[in-house]
Amino acid sequence: MTRTDRDNPAGTLSKMDMTTTKPPCVALLSSVLDMQYLVPAFRAAAPGLDLRVGPDLGALDDIDAAVCWAPPPGLLAAMPKLRLVQSLGAGIDHLRSDPDLPPGPTVCRIVDTAMAGTMTAYVTWAVIQHQRSMGAYLASAAAGQWQEQPIVAPSRHRVGIAGLGTLGIASARALQAVGYAVRGWSRSPKADLPEGVQAFHGQDGLDAFLAGCDALVCLLPLTAQTQGFLCADLFARLPRGAHLINVGRGSHLVEADLLRALDDGTLGAATLDAFQHEPLPSGHPFWRHPRINVTPHVAARTDPATIARQTLDNLAQLRRGQRPAVAVDPAQGY
Amino acid sequence: MTRTDRDNPAGTLSKMDMTTTKPPCVALLSSVLDMQYLVPAFRAAAPGLDLRVGPDLGALDDIDAAVCWAPPPGLLAAMPKLRLVQSLGAGIDHLRSDPDLPPGPTVCRIVDTAMAGTMTAYVTWAVIQHQRSMGAYLASAAAGQWQEQPIVAPSRHRVGIAGLGTLGIASARALQAVGYAVRGWSRSPKADLPEGVQAFHGQDGLDAFLAGCDALVCLLPLTAQTQGFLCADLFARLPRGAHLINVGRGSHLVEADLLRALDDGTLGAATLDAFQHEPLPSGHPFWRHPRINVTPHVAARTDPATIARQTLDNLAQLRRGQRPAVAVDPAQGY
Repeated sequence: MTRTDRDNPAGTLSKMDMTTTKPPCVALLSSVLDMQYLVPAFRAAAPGLDLRVGPDLGALDDIDAAVCWAPPPGLLAAMPKLRLVQSLGAGIDHLRSDPDLPPGPTVCRIVDTAMAGTMTAYVTWAVIQHQRSMGAYLASAAAGQWQEQPIVAPSRHRVGIAGLGTLGIASARALQAVGYAVRGWSRSPKADLPEGVQAFHGQDGLDAFLAGCDALVCLLPLTAQTQGFLCADLFARLPRGAHLINVGRGSHLVEADLLRALDDGTLGAATLDAFQHEPLPSGHPFWRHPRINVTPHVAARTDPATIARQTLDNLAQLRRGQRPAVAVDPAQGY
Repeated sequence: MTRTDRDNPAGTLSKMDMTTTKPPCVALLSSVLDMQYLVPAFRAAAPGLDLRVGPDLGALDDIDAAVCWAPPPGLLAAMPKLRLVQSLGAGIDHLRSDPDLPPGPTVCRIVDTAMAGTMTAYVTWAVIQHQRSMGAYLASAAAGQWQEQPIVAPSRHRVGIAGLGTLGIASARALQAVGYAVRGWSRSPKADLPEGVQAFHGQDGLDAFLAGCDALVCLLPLTAQTQGFLCADLFARLPRGAHLINVGRGSHLVEADLLRALDDGTLGAATLDAFQHEPLPSGHPFWRHPRINVTPHVAARTDPATIARQTLDNLAQLRRGQRPAVAVDPAQGY
């Protein structure tokens, strides 16, 4: 144990920086995401950090920790002193983008209990965007045209949320505050729903739930039972012309069924943030479909401050020879 | 008084229809708005009604009541039996579109205490649309591109609401439920603010309020004091790059000041639903400005069911020789 560690047994990395000659070097890198958005959080958490942002990483043998989302193939293996591969999220599937993931560094995931805010904002936006024809207004404005659309009060629009975990309940509460008529469905009964949210559960409750969803939000966990939940059979049980919002996983949705349901009017619109294959392949029919809004898996993401703090804590633990509690086994996948 | 009226002294028009040989004739007309959106509400309120929708009004001498928004010049004067000119809103300014408004018919306004839902949905959408870069996602999607944007948690975005009437308080409550940090400003202190909303008031409180508004929502009433409230001097007191949302009146905003503030970076974006001249003139610089979202005065509108019910009630009262309480003097303007 170094003198610094003994003086600050629970010390943060930023305090350690001040007393070591060479500050730790953390790289932010991704093959699909501009990581610049993380810079202010890392600077705030540890002003003395040697912070590198891909693709301009400088000398690779400086790098102690790599904060990654879908890292470019072979890049991590070219960092000889790398101790920590820090995933940007709770999952580590995206590390598979690199078939040459080196075995030495410890892989850690982020544990974030506060992502409800970003998810709630996305879900609320998706409901309003469609229900209030905001896309049509913006298209008219782009053409310089004053073109009004019918206005339906939120109270006349029924929004159903499938999946009543933390994110589902937070979304229900916000939609209710905006004025929507909110209902929720979960596999088993829930005790702690916000007042006024109409509750349904189980296979027995599913038909009655779906029949009253002008918009359906999928916030289910992905399990063997919920894979393919959003399929032709389910769409047919919604009111004709309903709006589907998938913020769950790509595998909840049967993509071909969605396209058919939009074409024959069973569904009126879809807002999709998760896909079977991400990034959504170029030329996929969802891009530019007139009744589908595609967003690039951004409904909820961990707060940068949380990422910075957990990365620095994990690196500090590894430097002390400890294995972080959030370390995962890449071979096992979680 | 006819037999029908005596039998149903407080009867609705729809009941009266059933017992008269000729049902009343109501026309829906506007020079700027497609009035079709009102049809279902009128059909539901009075199935037997002779309902006409402009511009296909049929024989003008059938028409008993005209539900209007900015009526075409001279049209109302060509309806010899017209008893009721029903404004679509609380105001009747828009009737000035017709310089030949006939003096005979009674002019009534709509009194609606339940428009908070539509306003709340619009304001919530405007905040999220900008804060979460939704426009950028939709533009990328239209180009078939998976392009992520920085994600900032709602809790790190401060939304200020200027004007804490019914609509302001409902908007504050919804934004708070989504997760935003909400503050409010009003001329005089307010007692009934939602818990957690940071309150400011008066000229003395304005600087401190503005300094913490990453987004500023104008929901003030239009008075001699608030005309031009949204001007260069105010913009300079907001955090640099703030987002302005005007859902008040067009005259709250000094248009030239807004354009300059967007050009020099004082403001980062504007969402505008009200304008000095409506419809916003073709060629106006607000159309197609890359940092302005224009919507055609649709943030809040009276519920069609309320319009149908009040129109039919007003016509029933006029047929009984009574002056509705919501009748206004067009010469006085309110």
